[in-house]
Amino acid sequence: MSDSVLTSPDQEVHHHATVTTNFNPEQSCEIGPTGDRQRNQDAFAIREEAALFQKELPLPGHPCNGDENLFPNKIASFTKVLPHDQLGVVILNAYQDLIRALSTADPDEFTTIPLGGIVKLVNPQGAYAFNLVGPDSHQTTIVPAPAFSSAEMASEMAEVYWQALTRDVPFNDYDTNPCTLAAAAELSDFSVFLGPKVKGEVTPQTLFRGNVTGALTGPYISQFLWLDFPFGAKTINQQYRTTVAGVDFMTSFQEWLNIQNGFPPTSGNVFDPKLRYIRNGRDLGEYVHRDFPSQEVLVAALILLGFGDIALAQTNPYLSCPTQVGFVTFGLSHILDFVNRAARLALEIAWFQKWLVHRRLRPEEFGGRVQNVLTGEADYPINPELLNSQAVSEVFSKFDSYLLPQAYPEGCPIHPSYPAGHACFIGAGVTMLKAFFKESFIIPNPVVASSDGLSLLPFSGPPLTVGGELNKLAANVAIGRDAAGVHYRSDALGLMLGETAAIGILEGYRKTYNEDFIGFSFTKFDGNKVII
Amino acid sequence: MSDSVLTSPDQEVHHHATVTTNFNPEQSCEIGPTGDRQRNQDAFAIREEAALFQKELPLPGHPCNGDENLFPNKIASFTKVLPHDQLGVVILNAYQDLIRALSTADPDEFTTIPLGGIVKLVNPQGAYAFNLVGPDSHQTTIVPAPAFSSAEMASEMAEVYWQALTRDVPFNDYDTNPCTLAAAAELSDFSVFLGPKVKGEVTPQTLFRGNVTGALTGPYISQFLWLDFPFGAKTINQQYRTTVAGVDFMTSFQEWLNIQNGFPPTSGNVFDPKLRYIRNGRDLGEYVHRDFPSQEVLVAALILLGFGDIALAQTNPYLSCPTQVGFVTFGLSHILDFVNRAARLALEIAWFQKWLVHRRLRPEEFGGRVQNVLTGEADYPINPELLNSQAVSEVFSKFDSYLLPQAYPEGCPIHPSYPAGHACFIGAGVTMLKAFFKESFIIPNPVVASSDGLSLLPFSGPPLTVGGELNKLAANVAIGRDAAGVHYRSDALGLMLGETAAIGILEGYRKTYNEDFIGFSFTKFDGNKVII
Repeated sequence: MSDSVLTSPDQEVHHHATVTTNFNPEQSCEIGPTGDRQRNQDAFAIREEAALFQKELPLPGHPCNGDENLFPNKIASFTKVLPHDQLGVVILNAYQDLIRALSTADPDEFTTIPLGGIVKLVNPQGAYAFNLVGPDSHQTTIVPAPAFSSAEMASEMAEVYWQALTRDVPFNDYDTNPCTLAAAAELSDFSVFLGPKVKGEVTPQTLFRGNVTGALTGPYISQFLWLDFPFGAKTINQQYRTTVAGVDFMTSFQEWLNIQNGFPPTSGNVFDPKLRYIRNGRDLGEYVHRDFPSQEVLVAALILLGFGDIALAQTNPYLSCPTQVGFVTFGLSHILDFVNRAARLALEIAWFQKWLVHRRLRPEEFGGRVQNVLTGEADYPINPELLNSQAVSEVFSKFDSYLLPQAYPEGCPIHPSYPAGHACFIGAGVTMLKAFFKESFIIPNPVVASSDGLSLLPFSGPPLTVGGELNKLAANVAIGRDAAGVHYRSDALGLMLGETAAIGILEGYRKTYNEDFIGFSFTKFDGNKVII
Repeated sequence: MSDSVLTSPDQEVHHHATVTTNFNPEQSCEIGPTGDRQRNQDAFAIREEAALFQKELPLPGHPCNGDENLFPNKIASFTKVLPHDQLGVVILNAYQDLIRALSTADPDEFTTIPLGGIVKLVNPQGAYAFNLVGPDSHQTTIVPAPAFSSAEMASEMAEVYWQALTRDVPFNDYDTNPCTLAAAAELSDFSVFLGPKVKGEVTPQTLFRGNVTGALTGPYISQFLWLDFPFGAKTINQQYRTTVAGVDFMTSFQEWLNIQNGFPPTSGNVFDPKLRYIRNGRDLGEYVHRDFPSQEVLVAALILLGFGDIALAQTNPYLSCPTQVGFVTFGLSHILDFVNRAARLALEIAWFQKWLVHRRLRPEEFGGRVQNVLTGEADYPINPELLNSQAVSEVFSKFDSYLLPQAYPEGCPIHPSYPAGHACFIGAGVTMLKAFFKESFIIPNPVVASSDGLSLLPFSGPPLTVGGELNKLAANVAIGRDAAGVHYRSDALGLMLGETAAIGILEGYRKTYNEDFIGFSFTKFDGNKVII
């Protein structure tokens, strides 16, 4: 390591990190408790300790549902954009090439995976990315995804069929709409359905909601997806572009097959000329079609900061400090840094689990299997609770096919289903926000979108807390992808992996603060409180 | 380290990072080139190597301008919100208490620093924050700030007086407005003025611009502060709330003194009811009054991503890959993570330099010194080039005081001037964007704001490149704070510290990618190209 080399412009040099000069460190004007040499050692020690902490955590193992081995034709695996036969079953050599690339991690192997068309795989090598903070992706685990033939898979698929059928029903009408009433009634009857229930029943008020505290309280949509937010020197409302009612995609087998083979869709979204507040599953699905990772968390953070100090977590060391306020630490800059880095670590974890462990097929692919069984083209062991469901027969009545109608013309993105990337990054971001803000703070002037999405009305009902609405936000973003047809309910277990990512980052940085700080204290998705 | 303890809700437990289970690692379904044990070691090795790389960089020393020792009454130091005498000179015991707190880093010492009023210090303990990635704040350096009595300080203060006088002049009118013409002429005559010049002269086209490549090309304002940007499922224009013309603050000595003593201003901003595109120094100053760290960089990133793959850096490993696209690595998620974390590291560096090394007084404080000298109340060694300047006399003619008219009612924030936090975070963010995007890409359909800020007009002139407009963005954000009266030109040297932060993060993550990647290649602010 030497001083940086001064060169003329246009000359390329390998760079050294610091702006170095010829000053003698002994002449430093710096004040502080330690000299630069000691500080240098302390900085290294903190990094090494954080790295060691993560290294010494247990290796948890990576169980899967075994479907990939159980079905030699890979009908239960993610195969989109590889080449497929006329029934949409993957060409086995291509799948084996994908597995070889994933197994070797050789970048060259990835460039020669045979694709069926022109659409490409999304970032399988992201599965190997290392991070410098928090848990390594490979040191996290998640329960196996529901198996292809299981009763849980049956109810999950039925739920997404119902979500497709009810995309245009305003959340405000769930209590009265015949289709949402039928959805709740049928989901109650599945032998295994893990969505929220009241007294053992799915109701219009639990329908398509999450299992986290707060998700069942008040309106379907979190306040953080409706309230105006400050964006520097302007205020932005949360009316977003959406798509028109009644236009669904991939409901013909030929279109479905072409897209499975990696060709673009033959038609596109039809956009509503009016921006609207999110009022139904279609709006929510379109919102999570276009969002960037941590967009929702950034917006939530800006809303929360707008509430002022009274909404900060009780552990914030500056909360009642007479002389100082936070900014770089325990303030705006700290919060924005942590929510964004947690989002990406969560996605690294998701990509590892998706590509290297589970490779679960998407609901769109499962819909093709249902189609082939019910038309007699194939005989796959799909659970009869699904094949005999009202959800599937209603879809057939409406669309003349058993395929899962998609909200996005292109269908799902080109990476496996389990866990959902959106669930992972929103789980991470929401966890970070629970660490920095006061979960029990009651959101002032709560709102509910009108059924046409053109206005916000005052909401009167139970108090909506920051903690509850953040959990609801997590559920909305994760399950909003199901509303579009690209994920199942269990894919939202990625929330827990996101939480793990966020907690790992908080742990890593535990010794980096000078402040008297008792630790971040908040409630996990499972209801347990932690101090970090 | 053991498996996480399952507890009932409401019970607090100290948390372990991973979601752990009872599965045997030997039964893992994971595929990949290494088993979990090897991966665990590799992950640690990468972290340790990155930490060691930073540790072994030279300790550069922290020179300062020596003013704090030269002036026992601390007239050249940052003292705002401490108690002051009738001339606005700090009460020495209070300053010594601040220095003792900073020297010991004892959190208790910070809580007993005597303040003059109710406004608090911004996060002095942020100066000690450690980070886990990139250079430690204490291992960066910057040249000393211009000294209180120097000719450079004189020209810097004259420049901010001129910026106050020309706040309401549209950038479009700089060529013809008498006040901007006078500003350019006078700044040309200072013996030491380090702003950009053409043939040795400051011109209306170099006035208040930055010294970085691209900052002199085309309109004053970067395209990234004018163009619409995509924000998920909506597009947002860059009209922002601004303040009305002609209303400046802290132009009476009593108001100035009260604010130095930590009391709130007696009047507030008057907002323009119309949102406007940034068209003059006042608009720009208000934009950087309300922004959150990395807001500008987020917007720029979203605009750049909207251009598509053709705007990606040539080094992106997915640029011509037939089978894969980037996302978690070398795509959207990667970019958003890195710009945000670079912003915060840059601010940690800024806070270290501000509080523990330089403690430079703000232009607002300097204005009080000028007032006292020119009214005969005190005899401070201010450089006569400033005292005799047209800038100062024009301010007196207009405001009946020699104080520096402020755009913000409260004046500057409560942390020392050098280096500027805005310069540091925008320098970091812009450097990250230069790493990920193609600097030579020409921005399509460039615009210029109308002189009333109500519309965008097509810009016809030299091509505006991504690299140039990013550098201009950095200059706009840094020097925009000078337009408001809260920083000097040399405070923008924080851009280089921000660049150092970004480069350090890129270096730290160098070994975390599986892709065949030749390294990030871009042009530094000084014109040198680097590969990292």
